[in-house]
Amino acid sequence: MKTYLDCLPCFLSQALRAARMATGDEKKIKDILDEVGMMLRDIPLESSPPEIGRLIYHKVCEMTGNPDPYRKLKTESTKEALSLYPALKNKIEKSEDRLYTAIKIAIAGNVIDVVANWNFDIRHDVDQALNKDFAICDYKEFKKRLNEAREVLYIGDNAGECVFDRILIEEMKKPTTYVVRGAPIINDATYEDALQAGINKVATIISSGTDGPGTILGICSEEFKRVYEHSDFVISKGQGNYEALSNEKRPIFFLLKAKCQIIARDIGVTEGDILLKGMFSRRASEHGSQDADEKTQRENAA
Amino acid sequence: MKTYLDCLPCFLSQALRAARMATGDEKKIKDILDEVGMMLRDIPLESSPPEIGRLIYHKVCEMTGNPDPYRKLKTESTKEALSLYPALKNKIEKSEDRLYTAIKIAIAGNVIDVVANWNFDIRHDVDQALNKDFAICDYKEFKKRLNEAREVLYIGDNAGECVFDRILIEEMKKPTTYVVRGAPIINDATYEDALQAGINKVATIISSGTDGPGTILGICSEEFKRVYEHSDFVISKGQGNYEALSNEKRPIFFLLKAKCQIIARDIGVTEGDILLKGMFSRRASEHGSQDADEKTQRENAA
Repeated sequence: MKTYLDCLPCFLSQALRAARMATGDEKKIKDILDEVGMMLRDIPLESSPPEIGRLIYHKVCEMTGNPDPYRKLKTESTKEALSLYPALKNKIEKSEDRLYTAIKIAIAGNVIDVVANWNFDIRHDVDQALNKDFAICDYKEFKKRLNEAREVLYIGDNAGECVFDRILIEEMKKPTTYVVRGAPIINDATYEDALQAGINKVATIISSGTDGPGTILGICSEEFKRVYEHSDFVISKGQGNYEALSNEKRPIFFLLKAKCQIIARDIGVTEGDILLKGMFSRRASEHGSQDADEKTQRENAA
Repeated sequence: MKTYLDCLPCFLSQALRAARMATGDEKKIKDILDEVGMMLRDIPLESSPPEIGRLIYHKVCEMTGNPDPYRKLKTESTKEALSLYPALKNKIEKSEDRLYTAIKIAIAGNVIDVVANWNFDIRHDVDQALNKDFAICDYKEFKKRLNEAREVLYIGDNAGECVFDRILIEEMKKPTTYVVRGAPIINDATYEDALQAGINKVATIISSGTDGPGTILGICSEEFKRVYEHSDFVISKGQGNYEALSNEKRPIFFLLKAKCQIIARDIGVTEGDILLKGMFSRRASEHGSQDADEKTQRENAA
């Protein structure tokens, strides 16, 4: 996804939140906003939002000398999410369709985003997401392709959310590789966060090698890119990964809540909508049947 | 009111909206945001938001060559508000307390702000405001002081809103001077807008002499300042005037909807709240009875 003009004020808001996380010094925060204001001029709108977000967060870290402003919050998010784990597993036990319920739980985990949603109540928001219908739901296709897949590449998003991802991984019953960011960036999950969430018990954790808030392939490690290229079933969680991968010409299932109007418009849904959206362009063009494939996609939409 | 750090991203959003009003050229809009981004560095937080908003809107007008981007929208707002006038007058006729209802109508008019509230439905929002309770309501004090007043100085806010102000002016039954901005700025009411709303039939229209989106006394005309200084009953409508006048040490009744979290926090209410708040510091200190005066104020709160 390209960067829209509407993203520019949002970058400034994000810088303000991160700066406040990193320091209590108002003067320093003003200096950071001044610097970020001046950075806007050098932002090409052709870049994806995570590419720009990366530069802005690095500026905040550099100017405050705090390399991981969200550390404490991330640990607390995971702790709180873990406290919900038994109740969520219980929901799976009681459900008619375990896989579908696990997908709903994974999307509910995507609400844990203190960056897009500053004042959130985790239990309330999770319940709300579980009761919410998907705006786009390519579930049949998801199930079919999952069935045929050798293994799953699961690209994680935020800390805390990992706990919810773990539940989906447990229900997919396929060998899974779970991808985290290569370095701390906002509240995104790193190796440490995935480990705290117990992902290591259900999947192999690898790093994308990027320190951006999304899987920016241009700066991912060669190792990750090899895994990504050879994977036959990819799940991409959250906005940052969608923004970075939405133009990819390969099959990917995007699982996210559209947390802002801009991303919602880009996808063709409404702000706040949740979706499981399959993109299968490469396979379609490989088989010379894009139209048929798009038709299948629409039929799968709930 | 001083400018808060949270206002900075909002200035950029406002610049984006104004730029889009002024031109359809995306490249030009990006250039404007780049310029505004660089202006942030020179913004002293001690300035009030209208002082900074003024500079930003001037930049938008200068760079697009459009001196009044909101012209068409303002005319339409007033036209739509005028179409509500008979129904609103009818509400007064049917009400138990005509003056109180007129105040509610005047505050409902403050919802007509395409800047703070981009997607609005005027009839729906007006109804909602009429049914909403005041968070702060110094009505008894308002009535008492109005009764004692020689005349009213009514500082207007947005175009369209003037029609609602007219209804309150008609119910106050005092000689009234209605203040508009000295030049087009955002969707604020100018002489032309007040005239279209029929304010000339119920009050003398004067200009504050400022081209800022609020009554920034430092750059108001000497003529206006004389009127302001000698007035014994001042009504200030809307956020921009609150931001510019909230630190004034003289009696003013602020009548507004708190449209953002920052202003709501500054006043001590919740975003979306409506209020009629009397500030009487000068009178209180003149009489050496500030405590008593504040007590009266609290007792008056509904």
